[in-house]
Amino acid sequence: MATHPPARPCRLLPLCLGLFQGALLLFFALFVTYEEPSARVEDASLVANQLYGTYPLFQDIQVMLVVGLGLLLTFLPRYGLSVLTHNFLLLNFCMQWALVVQGLLHHLHHGQIHLDLHSLLLAEFAAVTVLISAGAVLGRTSLCQLLLVAAWEVPIYVASEWLVVTHLGVLDVGGTITIHVFSCYFGLGVSKALFGAGRRPLHPKETPTPRSELSSLLGTLILWVFWPSFVAVLCRPGDAQHRAILNTILAMSASTVTAVVASSLLEEGRLRPGHLQNGSLAAGVAIGAVADMAVPPVAALALGILSAAVCVLGFKFLSPLLTRKLILQDHCGIHNLHGLPGILGAVASAVVVLVTPKDTSSSPFSQVSPAGVNASERAVGQWGERGAGRQALCQAAGLAVAVGGSLLAGLLTGAMLRLPCLAQPPEQHCFEDSLNFSIQGQAESLEPSGTMEEGALALKERT
Amino acid sequence: MATHPPARPCRLLPLCLGLFQGALLLFFALFVTYEEPSARVEDASLVANQLYGTYPLFQDIQVMLVVGLGLLLTFLPRYGLSVLTHNFLLLNFCMQWALVVQGLLHHLHHGQIHLDLHSLLLAEFAAVTVLISAGAVLGRTSLCQLLLVAAWEVPIYVASEWLVVTHLGVLDVGGTITIHVFSCYFGLGVSKALFGAGRRPLHPKETPTPRSELSSLLGTLILWVFWPSFVAVLCRPGDAQHRAILNTILAMSASTVTAVVASSLLEEGRLRPGHLQNGSLAAGVAIGAVADMAVPPVAALALGILSAAVCVLGFKFLSPLLTRKLILQDHCGIHNLHGLPGILGAVASAVVVLVTPKDTSSSPFSQVSPAGVNASERAVGQWGERGAGRQALCQAAGLAVAVGGSLLAGLLTGAMLRLPCLAQPPEQHCFEDSLNFSIQGQAESLEPSGTMEEGALALKERT
Amino acid sequence: MATHPPARPCRLLPLCLGLFQGALLLFFALFVTYEEPSARVEDASLVANQLYGTYPLFQDIQVMLVVGLGLLLTFLPRYGLSVLTHNFLLLNFCMQWALVVQGLLHHLHHGQIHLDLHSLLLAEFAAVTVLISAGAVLGRTSLCQLLLVAAWEVPIYVASEWLVVTHLGVLDVGGTITIHVFSCYFGLGVSKALFGAGRRPLHPKETPTPRSELSSLLGTLILWVFWPSFVAVLCRPGDAQHRAILNTILAMSASTVTAVVASSLLEEGRLRPGHLQNGSLAAGVAIGAVADMAVPPVAALALGILSAAVCVLGFKFLSPLLTRKLILQDHCGIHNLHGLPGILGAVASAVVVLVTPKDTSSSPFSQVSPAGVNASERAVGQWGERGAGRQALCQAAGLAVAVGGSLLAGLLTGAMLRLPCLAQPPEQHCFEDSLNFSIQGQAESLEPSGTMEEGALALKERT
Repeated sequence: MATHPPARPCRLLPLCLGLFQGALLLFFALFVTYEEPSARVEDASLVANQLYGTYPLFQDIQVMLVVGLGLLLTFLPRYGLSVLTHNFLLLNFCMQWALVVQGLLHHLHHGQIHLDLHSLLLAEFAAVTVLISAGAVLGRTSLCQLLLVAAWEVPIYVASEWLVVTHLGVLDVGGTITIHVFSCYFGLGVSKALFGAGRRPLHPKETPTPRSELSSLLGTLILWVFWPSFVAVLCRPGDAQHRAILNTILAMSASTVTAVVASSLLEEGRLRPGHLQNGSLAAGVAIGAVADMAVPPVAALALGILSAAVCVLGFKFLSPLLTRKLILQDHCGIHNLHGLPGILGAVASAVVVLVTPKDTSSSPFSQVSPAGVNASERAVGQWGERGAGRQALCQAAGLAVAVGGSLLAGLLTGAMLRLPCLAQPPEQHCFEDSLNFSIQGQAESLEPSGTMEEGALALKERT
Repeated sequence: MATHPPARPCRLLPLCLGLFQGALLLFFALFVTYEEPSARVEDASLVANQLYGTYPLFQDIQVMLVVGLGLLLTFLPRYGLSVLTHNFLLLNFCMQWALVVQGLLHHLHHGQIHLDLHSLLLAEFAAVTVLISAGAVLGRTSLCQLLLVAAWEVPIYVASEWLVVTHLGVLDVGGTITIHVFSCYFGLGVSKALFGAGRRPLHPKETPTPRSELSSLLGTLILWVFWPSFVAVLCRPGDAQHRAILNTILAMSASTVTAVVASSLLEEGRLRPGHLQNGSLAAGVAIGAVADMAVPPVAALALGILSAAVCVLGFKFLSPLLTRKLILQDHCGIHNLHGLPGILGAVASAVVVLVTPKDTSSSPFSQVSPAGVNASERAVGQWGERGAGRQALCQAAGLAVAVGGSLLAGLLTGAMLRLPCLAQPPEQHCFEDSLNFSIQGQAESLEPSGTMEEGALALKERT
Repeated sequence: MATHPPARPCRLLPLCLGLFQGALLLFFALFVTYEEPSARVEDASLVANQLYGTYPLFQDIQVMLVVGLGLLLTFLPRYGLSVLTHNFLLLNFCMQWALVVQGLLHHLHHGQIHLDLHSLLLAEFAAVTVLISAGAVLGRTSLCQLLLVAAWEVPIYVASEWLVVTHLGVLDVGGTITIHVFSCYFGLGVSKALFGAGRRPLHPKETPTPRSELSSLLGTLILWVFWPSFVAVLCRPGDAQHRAILNTILAMSASTVTAVVASSLLEEGRLRPGHLQNGSLAAGVAIGAVADMAVPPVAALALGILSAAVCVLGFKFLSPLLTRKLILQDHCGIHNLHGLPGILGAVASAVVVLVTPKDTSSSPFSQVSPAGVNASERAVGQWGERGAGRQALCQAAGLAVAVGGSLLAGLLTGAMLRLPCLAQPPEQHCFEDSLNFSIQGQAESLEPSGTMEEGALALKERT
């Protein structure tokens, strides 16, 4: 864990990934097929319409994860290539691995797994959890370590999602509890176990420059635009999906304004880029559990305002406290963006379940529409039968399971990452692209993305 | 207005925005609901289909406004974070404010306002006008001042749109007159009244660098790609929408080639980035009023060529003239991108109305299709009843109202901005992100986004 | 070809482009109209549905070509504005020119050409070939020369596509043979004939910086996300389109992981950005010819793995060999991204045709669905009648025609580019934006996008 001699790249990486690709080929060859083409004319037309309904949302989510999330993480000024690449590779590895795990667990009918766009979507959702968790340890971990995190987190997510949604019947169409809360505490667990008790001061290369803040803000904007698709893609087509989209847009609009207000209050009239980059997205995290419920528009606005406030306050006060008291590294502030707003959203969902009147016409989850045949099971609550009080309890229980389970699993995973063969990067080479990339002409221009100040310093040292 | 001592951030900002959020919550709690879910199965399927038709276009427009327009404005090399943030905050504030204003004026049925994706779309259109107008004064105004502009411009836009489209029956499906011409002259009015007679030389930090030109061009490309969705989103589904998309693509393609030709002629074989960034978008502004009319494809091409030529010539000859003779600041050249092509488009719409033959099968506006139930009123012209001559007069009258009304309203708004409490930034801190942002490590690296030349200068000064 | 005295911009450019715009106006005025609006209510609804099915995919492709491909080429650190602009202008010029050529050849019914979104899509595909070919000579050619390439390549592509798809009946829904292989060898032919036998060392300004690698990687990510739309847009709606999307996603996911594995093996544990930028896209090239065939998912994965391996190996071993032995310049490595994976995909399509069982229910091309009325002819194979062996021969023949014909045509085109009037840029001004752009304040800050190292050097020279 301490300083290894020089920055040695990981030799295990190609071996493990290559073996995984081979195993994946074998698994697909043995078990995975596409669905039989529909024989009848009406069915073909239905397939086309379902595709037109889902595919644009699927693409929106792909843009969010590959481009938006990648850019959001480029606030590290010398680590941009690495975060984009790690994010991209993790997404693909996790999607493939989740297809295997979900295929084995859920879809194994008659020895064959039928692959469709919906299964890819569920696999993407599993991948998201890893991308979020990685934010806690980004920059001080090698790609090998991140892949090991992914290898463990995907099956644990699948199990947790089954427990929370299918078994407990928690309503969480946008993944507030199952994705955001789960991945946040998993990531914090990994960070705590990996970096342990060693107090690490802020790395000089961790400080963003105005240009890296700009590209990170660009990532925020892309995530902000497409977030409604993420929340609504698994809703039943029709009114519920329409409402989920509107709720998400309203909440995120309110949280953007609130992030500016909160940052401006805390920073004496100026803004801090990190507050805006995260605060304007906090509502997307919080709204997930209630987006398709029969809440009035004002509830979405209020939740958006609260979540942005909680997120910005978390950055200002809670993060320094956690670093100081619990010696907890959270490089990207995932606790403020995913943890706190996620808990808020989970609590909100329990409250909504309790206060919404009972008659069926305005039940908090949407009515079954005929087009909803392949909608996720997530929205199929059994609340009608079990009563509001019990459903609210279930929401709380789901939150507790997600927090506790993921924290425990994260701690165990983090402990594994301390294996010496995993090539944890030495402290002085952290947050540097040269750790992962062999860049042409690197010998001649060591300081290519530096600020003027650094350039002047480098020049002085040489003259 | 003159040089305040140091750059004091605006203390009013969080207070005003916070109060606005509170009032918004109250308004939504009292008046705004979602539509009742459709009870019947066929209705639910119709809702799903309408959503699939509108939502992808809505997302395209969101990308344009949040990402594309934001990037287009980053040509100011040290003000990138600020323009992205101002653009983002103004969009959200205006959308919320427009929902309130439009709710009060138009949709107040039975004490309740029913919110749907269509109302959000109309609110976005109101926000666009503010984003365009802000371009005239960008960099020399504080966020407080921009929010005050927004607070005034949104209700005036709603009134102007009602007068021009509903009352006068002007045909303007893509917002050429109601959005582009209106917002341009509003912004110029604000600029004139705010900066008054004081001649200001080009600020040194206003000069783009190759890198800031690149990110601005990227914004242009994003706007260019999605502009057909902006023009066509309010068209009736079916042939009219198809034609509006094709006309916009043809016009913008022609204007791109023409912008290169014109810039190359004026700059002795080289290109000027600003010509390309704006000229290739000019056709999108001009085509709006005629996009869904029964014009042949050649008309779209011709309009695209003309609008790009007008825009590039405006940058080369008219802008310096306006600055010199009228002492009019127009930092982003909105008069060349929105004003001139907008007037051209309005004139074109009058000509098309006059020359198109009268028989109903090829009437300049599209036939009513059964799916068009929730299309905007914009396309519902009364021309069939009133005759071509009168409709052409209406188009001209609409243009006159938009120019005159917005100029007057802009002048009044600009005069208000001179209130001393509004913290206009002092000249030496203009076009600088540090005015609005507290950036980490700022003390040590004051010149982070500067060019080498500046770095060398800074170093010299210190050594 | 040798060093012209100073960097003279091309004076022919505005003249030729202007004349072309005039001729285009004339052609459109005489021959091109929109389709008559559908008279009946059901038809209007059908038009709307077809539009909702095609338009989002069309927009995805526009984003790929305008933003994604443009950014991918910005790996040249001082040539970013130029590549974005050349790419943008070429796309528009080629689309217009292809509309003319395709209109004359294919669609001339009754003296009128009916324009719709489908014709624009086919014109875009013609433009793609030029954008790819340009990659071989990028940076050392003037805009005039690139436009001349475009003027020749578009009609030759249209002829080649007719020969390969319509005449030979080759199955190639995603353009593997007709677009990627064709454009690659056309570009290599141009490069060979233009730069001839003169051995040119790596230009110092050709070396990417970490920042230019980052924006190039961003282009890769955008292309990667939207590639499934490119492959599937001409498929029959329904099962075939669904399968084409799934196959493309699987293949590209596998090729991303494989690109990391291969690069890591070849670079001793580190990654080379170029390997990742191209290797992760190679599968999109290769999958095109088999995407809609009835292959099992494992075949898509395997093809993705192979194509990424071939691409990365090509960069490492074949490219230096071609440069050394054949004295062949390929600035962007199009042979590795489009040539090798394209040939692989063509061979794969022949193999799939041979090994797929013959019964109609699992024929390699999709069943005719009722919604497929305006799907491209590409998918309409005559294989059912001609037998697997003959169809496989056709696939091979198509590949041979694409390679041989394009290479020959490219050589002829390249020879024409050596005309002295075409203002080939002198070697010392290659890869420099200042060749094409007049940038404000250029005199004072010559080195604005340089690295610190360059800044320090520039400063030293001056002090």
